[in-house]
Amino acid sequence: MPHPTDQSAAVTVLGLGPMGRALAAAFLEAGLHTTVWNRTPGRDGELTARGAVPAPTPEEAVAAAPLTVVCVVNYDASDAVLRQAAVTTALKGRTVVNLSADTPERARDTADWAGRHGIRYLDGAIMTPTPAIGTDDAVFLHSGPRELYEELRPVLAALGGTHTHLGEDAGRAAAYDIALLDIFWTAMAGYTHALALARAEGVSGAELAPFAQGIAAILPPLFTEFAADSDTGTYPGELNPITSAASTMTHIVHASEAHGIDASVMRVIEGQARRGIALGHGTDGFSRVGEVIGRR
Amino acid sequence: MPHPTDQSAAVTVLGLGPMGRALAAAFLEAGLHTTVWNRTPGRDGELTARGAVPAPTPEEAVAAAPLTVVCVVNYDASDAVLRQAAVTTALKGRTVVNLSADTPERARDTADWAGRHGIRYLDGAIMTPTPAIGTDDAVFLHSGPRELYEELRPVLAALGGTHTHLGEDAGRAAAYDIALLDIFWTAMAGYTHALALARAEGVSGAELAPFAQGIAAILPPLFTEFAADSDTGTYPGELNPITSAASTMTHIVHASEAHGIDASVMRVIEGQARRGIALGHGTDGFSRVGEVIGRR
Ligand SMILES: NC(=O)c1ccc[n+]([C@@H]2O[C@H](COP(=O)([O-])OP(=O)(O)OC[C@H]3O[C@@H](n4cnc5c(N)ncnc54)[C@H](OP(=O)(O)O)[C@@H]3O)[C@@H](O)[C@H]2O)c1
Ligand SMILES: NC(=O)c1ccc[n+]([C@@H]2O[C@H](COP(=O)([O-])OP(=O)(O)OC[C@H]3O[C@@H](n4cnc5c(N)ncnc54)[C@H](OP(=O)(O)O)[C@@H]3O)[C@@H](O)[C@H]2O)c1
Repeated sequence: MPHPTDQSAAVTVLGLGPMGRALAAAFLEAGLHTTVWNRTPGRDGELTARGAVPAPTPEEAVAAAPLTVVCVVNYDASDAVLRQAAVTTALKGRTVVNLSADTPERARDTADWAGRHGIRYLDGAIMTPTPAIGTDDAVFLHSGPRELYEELRPVLAALGGTHTHLGEDAGRAAAYDIALLDIFWTAMAGYTHALALARAEGVSGAELAPFAQGIAAILPPLFTEFAADSDTGTYPGELNPITSAASTMTHIVHASEAHGIDASVMRVIEGQARRGIALGHGTDGFSRVGEVIGRR
Repeated sequence: MPHPTDQSAAVTVLGLGPMGRALAAAFLEAGLHTTVWNRTPGRDGELTARGAVPAPTPEEAVAAAPLTVVCVVNYDASDAVLRQAAVTTALKGRTVVNLSADTPERARDTADWAGRHGIRYLDGAIMTPTPAIGTDDAVFLHSGPRELYEELRPVLAALGGTHTHLGEDAGRAAAYDIALLDIFWTAMAGYTHALALARAEGVSGAELAPFAQGIAAILPPLFTEFAADSDTGTYPGELNPITSAASTMTHIVHASEAHGIDASVMRVIEGQARRGIALGHGTDGFSRVGEVIGRR
């Protein structure tokens, strides 16, 4: 396979879903020689028009640069690409940064696999939507060898935003990732449900949204408080006891179901709050539920 | 019952939970003559020290001012106070602003009751935590007769923040309230769960919180997008298809349950996403779930 003579400013992107395309576009924008590959052909049109080099196979793609960035749906998908014999062989002595999302366990397993095959490996996660890539708003988390992270910082900088190295344990970025996606998707599910409930009450999305922004604005200080509650194992409820929260949750369930809207998410949350109350914690705050659902 | 000669700058607060106390404190701070009552005695200590007048009964409390603000846990509680014959009689010709939370139906029923008894009635909801009361950050929603709302604006201004009149239908404030609390409590449940999951992964609340703030920061533009999706009935998934979201949700469920943490909330959300996919909407965005759970 022919290699360009200077590979130092070259990168390969495997996976051209919305996020992989955004990453490749940012590398191109930063002037890097960018090779791209995707399982299903035809996703690279806009990128090749901007100078990306399409590779016909993943093994040719990874051979084209010292660094391969992987961004596919999950680690079943990244395994399906990286663990093909020809790809693994081509990666020997090269570097993989895996920005696909999955569990910490899968990240650690992939780091082990890379180690066994002489592949330098950094695991990562992206905490912002595609339009943030290449801008100051992008947020990237990394874990794995710090030295490798430091070495890669200049090329990672092409992706914009903030990069944080969370530790040597390859699973650490994924641990933060799943916790943060837990917040994200639960909040978005709550909002999606709220829009359906509002619509049933004759309130449009456009009418609700400005007030929903107000709810987003009150979360940060409460996030700080709940984090302290979790760390100290104390759940102060003076300002807002679980009993009050549970009452509100009941209204949401009743009003939703009266409109024929599925309220199972809030039914579960209400049930956890009511369990906390039944366990004798009615004057605690809702943060107590972290113990009800956990193992303390 | 003796009335003070000038009642114009007088207000009564029924209900001295954390929120009722915050409201009474703001009225006192603004120099209003403030009468307070709570079902369980002994909650008014700090308020009476600051000049509030405790009333021995709710009927004496409401008779002490032209305006009564009610802030109890829900409308079962506000009914239990207001619909006592002596209280209803004492309220005739006076005004009630009910800032307790409940369903739109209960708000409308209470407005009807007030109308039948010659009581002027405004329904309301508070969208911010107690420390915001009396500050610019407070957010209040109101519904009912606009004329009455305009008349009450000067005294409501004592509570600080932003007041919005949402319409003549008494249930409208409650409709916004339950939808916004749906977002709030679902998001807080997601965060509480994320803290438990992070802890099991060896990540403390203090470590997670700064990144959680980052998640709160990406919500506002997505709230605007999802609102438009709901209003137009189109659910674009080019930037983030439901299939990708569902994959992430699966990781959260697996990682949680592998640590012995209850993942039922995310199980329900994942199930809704998977139903959306099975119904043929895998390339749509997650906002499509608003139809899966609703009636469209
Ligand atoms: N989009 C966002 O807003 C966002 C934000 C933060 C993080 N992320 C993460 O970024 C990663 C990529 O996300 P995405 O938005 O680009 O879309 P996605 O739908 O999660 O992933 C699509 C990509 O995965 C590939 N893929 C799926 N199964 C495969 C397999 N068995 N073998 C090889 N390739 C396979 C697809 O190839 P085909 O085209 O051949 O199907 C496509 O390239 C995900 O882990 C996601 O969680 C996304
Ligand atoms: N705290 C917040 O951050 C917050 C924020 C926004 C909105 N709100 C809303 O404000 C309202 C009041 O909340 P809160 O925080 O003050 O605490 P709460 O726990 O919701 O309500 C406590 C108040 O309700 C009274 N109450 C309960 N059952 C009653 C009954 N059957 N008869 C008479 N009074 C009864 C309690 O009296 P006793 O002392 O006798 O039990 C106490 O005064 C709720 O609707 C809540 O949703 C609160």
